Amino acid sequence: MERKVIEAYKDCDYKLNYHGSRNVQVLKDSLDQIDGETYADIYGQGTLINDFEEKMALMLGKESAVFYPSGTMAQQIALRLWCDEVGSREVAYHPLCHLEIHEQDGIKELHQIHTFLLGEENRLLTIEDIKGLPTSVKVLLIELPQREIGGQVPSFDALVEIRDYCLEKGIRMHLDGARLLEVLPYYQKTAPEITTLFDSVYISLYKGINGVAGAILAGPKDFAVHSKVWKRRYGGDLISLYPYILAADHHYELRKDKFVDYYELCRLMAYRINQCPHMVTEPKIPVSNMCHVHMDMPLEQTAAVLEKVYSETGIGLTPSIMKEDENTSWFAVTTGDALREAPSDVIDRLFDKLKSEMEIV
Amino acid sequence: MERKVIEAYKDCDYKLNYHGSRNVQVLKDSLDQIDGETYADIYGQGTLINDFEEKMALMLGKESAVFYPSGTMAQQIALRLWCDEVGSREVAYHPLCHLEIHEQDGIKELHQIHTFLLGEENRLLTIEDIKGLPTSVKVLLIELPQREIGGQVPSFDALVEIRDYCLEKGIRMHLDGARLLEVLPYYQKTAPEITTLFDSVYISLYKGINGVAGAILAGPKDFAVHSKVWKRRYGGDLISLYPYILAADHHYELRKDKFVDYYELCRLMAYRINQCPHMVTEPKIPVSNMCHVHMDMPLEQTAAVLEKVYSETGIGLTPSIMKEDENTSWFAVTTGDALREAPSDVIDRLFDKLKSEMEIV
Repeated sequence: MERKVIEAYKDCDYKLNYHGSRNVQVLKDSLDQIDGETYADIYGQGTLINDFEEKMALMLGKESAVFYPSGTMAQQIALRLWCDEVGSREVAYHPLCHLEIHEQDGIKELHQIHTFLLGEENRLLTIEDIKGLPTSVKVLLIELPQREIGGQVPSFDALVEIRDYCLEKGIRMHLDGARLLEVLPYYQKTAPEITTLFDSVYISLYKGINGVAGAILAGPKDFAVHSKVWKRRYGGDLISLYPYILAADHHYELRKDKFVDYYELCRLMAYRINQCPHMVTEPKIPVSNMCHVHMDMPLEQTAAVLEKVYSETGIGLTPSIMKEDENTSWFAVTTGDALREAPSDVIDRLFDKLKSEMEIV
Repeated sequence: MERKVIEAYKDCDYKLNYHGSRNVQVLKDSLDQIDGETYADIYGQGTLINDFEEKMALMLGKESAVFYPSGTMAQQIALRLWCDEVGSREVAYHPLCHLEIHEQDGIKELHQIHTFLLGEENRLLTIEDIKGLPTSVKVLLIELPQREIGGQVPSFDALVEIRDYCLEKGIRMHLDGARLLEVLPYYQKTAPEITTLFDSVYISLYKGINGVAGAILAGPKDFAVHSKVWKRRYGGDLISLYPYILAADHHYELRKDKFVDYYELCRLMAYRINQCPHMVTEPKIPVSNMCHVHMDMPLEQTAAVLEKVYSETGIGLTPSIMKEDENTSWFAVTTGDALREAPSDVIDRLFDKLKSEMEIV
């Protein structure tokens, strides 16, 4: 049944999730304006990579930035470096941190780092959780926004309070800012106003930005220099990373000023979703371009309704639906260019149908 | 002075090293025939990546192949998997193995693997070296051809003898075949005829093939499956690797039948070089598309002569020269499309000038 939803989504005239298909055109568009004679970056050297790293360092308000093939690699290295600096192999983060649930325990297997899980799966971590840590733990990762709980964030004041406490206790703070640009409109802050609360920061170059892959790790100059030694050790210091760099730069320029729109569109979507029976968003009012939608009906039933709505309207909301338990299900909504560029009546048509179908379930 | 050689090389009308400049055109050429609607690979899944992996498995005569962003990552993982299988953390390889000298000790830092160095820096390892290993060492890496000593290889019979010994002793053999395709014409063997002597094999996709970056690790099916867990741990399981895969496939098809030419051109170059005073190639007769050139004069003097030859002929042999000791220097010659596509009188003009300049040194 879920399979049929994916197929129905693929057949839609309007696929409203994110920025549209992940296809080769994303790369082709990035290369159109690039002179073929442009020299490749070679093992992290060359203006092509170094200029982009400098631009990202400036944007993020950090001394140095290093381009990585993946956030997985960048963040493990960041945490290892802070561990080495404080002289322990202990890190604290949320139970649904990317490193804990999506990386096959890379940080434990490759670095023998012990992880402390802060707070509970279904809520943000708080300063009280941090105060409960053993005093030996001196490295903390915070994710903004937190993807696995619908993209929630603590308030800016809560972040400042955490920062003050960590400074006092000598705890290094790393920011998992995979989707940092996506929450700046909510905070009404610049990137440096957020990142100044952290010792280091990672951002993804393919999520909101819609590059092909890649990540930036930014922090103090020494930190960046040392991180390159580990980048080499991991096999991440590729002879040439330019396909990802050129794509990241092109799509960053295209979208850097659109995150306000994505945020507003997501709040609009959540408002409309919450008007439909059986559907509740988390958070109720999104703080980024994403939210989760919780359904008080089993996966099969949700799938049947969505498949019908997609087929009959030609408008798709999201391709993937997940089981929560026997009686409930959920899916993520992420707003981007696909919705932004859709004709204005498309959302109305989608929700008219969705609401009427949900009313007769 | 070395700087001036690089500049003079860049200004040459004919740059004879390898396949020409590493520039963005290498990627652009690969995408020209690709439909923009082609779906990206997603975390190692999708026909784009899986078809190429199957093609490479078949070409290499192994059950399965996995695409990696780098050989550094692929080989560390291969050795770790064989270590786990034999239940030790010990690996043997040549003192100038890539893992020992170019990877910031990644295998030691990330896996606590102890390495045994076989034989001596300036020669190939032999079966006698292997017989001298402690019996606890059950994992062996052999590089064919061995880059750091001019691309030398043992005879096929010597490889068979090593294989027989290792089978008897339960030693797993991994092939560093970064440049494996480059030595097949010398061996007059197919890739599977060589790789059947090894439990696993890595090949590079950007050296002789001239892709942008990337590597293939091939071996038994279980080995490939387990390697993907480590690929995820390393942060090598990128959301999309297609820029490297499309480039590798395009350039592999362009060059797979040209390695015989590259090999013959290299023997020709070595013959001409050895006729010049002060210059000796290693090996005397190349067995691949590469050789080293040893000069019985200091770096500065070699640089001065080459810079003069390049400037006055507009023909460049190689951009990089290295110091050997106070009185000697060396550089690598690698043959590829650049030489293959140069007009026929270019080599004559280069060597006429080079020989006459060397005669008056």
